[in-house]
Amino acid sequence: MEIQNYCGTSRIAGCSFSVYPMADRFKEIILEALKTVDTSKVWIETDDVTTLVRGRIPHVFDVTSAIFIAAAKDGDHVVFNGTYSIGCPGDSTGDVYMAEDETKLNISNVKNIKLETASKFSLYPLGGGNYMDTIYSQIENMRSRGITVSKSHYSTRLDGNAFDVFDGLEHVFTETEASGSSHTVMTVTMSANSPSAKGVIK
Amino acid sequence: MEIQNYCGTSRIAGCSFSVYPMADRFKEIILEALKTVDTSKVWIETDDVTTLVRGRIPHVFDVTSAIFIAAAKDGDHVVFNGTYSIGCPGDSTGDVYMAEDETKLNISNVKNIKLETASKFSLYPLGGGNYMDTIYSQIENMRSRGITVSKSHYSTRLDGNAFDVFDGLEHVFTETEASGSSHTVMTVTMSANSPSAKGVIK
Repeated sequence: MEIQNYCGTSRIAGCSFSVYPMADRFKEIILEALKTVDTSKVWIETDDVTTLVRGRIPHVFDVTSAIFIAAAKDGDHVVFNGTYSIGCPGDSTGDVYMAEDETKLNISNVKNIKLETASKFSLYPLGGGNYMDTIYSQIENMRSRGITVSKSHYSTRLDGNAFDVFDGLEHVFTETEASGSSHTVMTVTMSANSPSAKGVIK
Repeated sequence: MEIQNYCGTSRIAGCSFSVYPMADRFKEIILEALKTVDTSKVWIETDDVTTLVRGRIPHVFDVTSAIFIAAAKDGDHVVFNGTYSIGCPGDSTGDVYMAEDETKLNISNVKNIKLETASKFSLYPLGGGNYMDTIYSQIENMRSRGITVSKSHYSTRLDGNAFDVFDGLEHVFTETEASGSSHTVMTVTMSANSPSAKGVIK
């Protein structure tokens, strides 16, 4: 549960995220990535800490994944960090476009981009629901798409193609919400083009 | 609740975190920062996505704050992102040094470094407890230290000196845990030396 927000139990999804290019050209990389992404089906606002995106689940994932893939596709070491949230009792009802259909605007631009990534994600179903079976079935689903799943302290590690991992994460988030969790939070850290060797996986 | 971890309800605290210098020299900045930090009172392990620190609460905050402050103190735009956790029912009991006393090893090196930062944090008390009063009193406590507190979607924004903000966050985390939350998670994104204008604060 987040604090200092007020009202509402709407089904507005959102993500507070940042993209970190580890390069002197970080501003240019971010601005060039943003130019290629169609954000017209979400409410979006950037400040000096994070960018907020709000709208329907498919568009929130479409926009966040497209911005990261666009920023990382040219080989810079870029990290995505985001907190996806839906149903926070303290959330407000404004700042969102909920009337849009489900057609994703950016999927055709990014679905064929191959980008190996290493991620850690955690899921916090704060509002109950039969989520554990959902999570395990979605993890099996990820494995069937060629994503490597392993465990870490405080998170689950995913290794695979960026688009496929985001697609899997969207399924996990959607299915957890659908399974009855009234308030679902998911945190994701995704790294591309890291010069580090593949790490110690416990 | 994290998935794919097993056992234990110990009082081991931990943090999965990364430091992102937005500079071509990112590796050198991180390695030079690490050299200046004494990590002997925590278990620490780095892979290509995040660094894990585990131990007693004071040392987990001491080490994570000291690494960030060391990396950012020379003026590079550096962002810290971390998930602090304690009491996860799925946590393991290993990988931790719990026998240490509470004397922080790095505080004397960092407490006098002035570093303006902008942060967003969220608190997820997953195990019950009377946490809301604790949170509000701790936020008042932060204000009394000169930290500016404002609200954002999905998080609370803090503007102030890095050391003071980390100190406030440690108090929030410690007090929430002490108030009876059996499983507490706190996410923090902290940015220093950002070239962006101070953002839109809602």
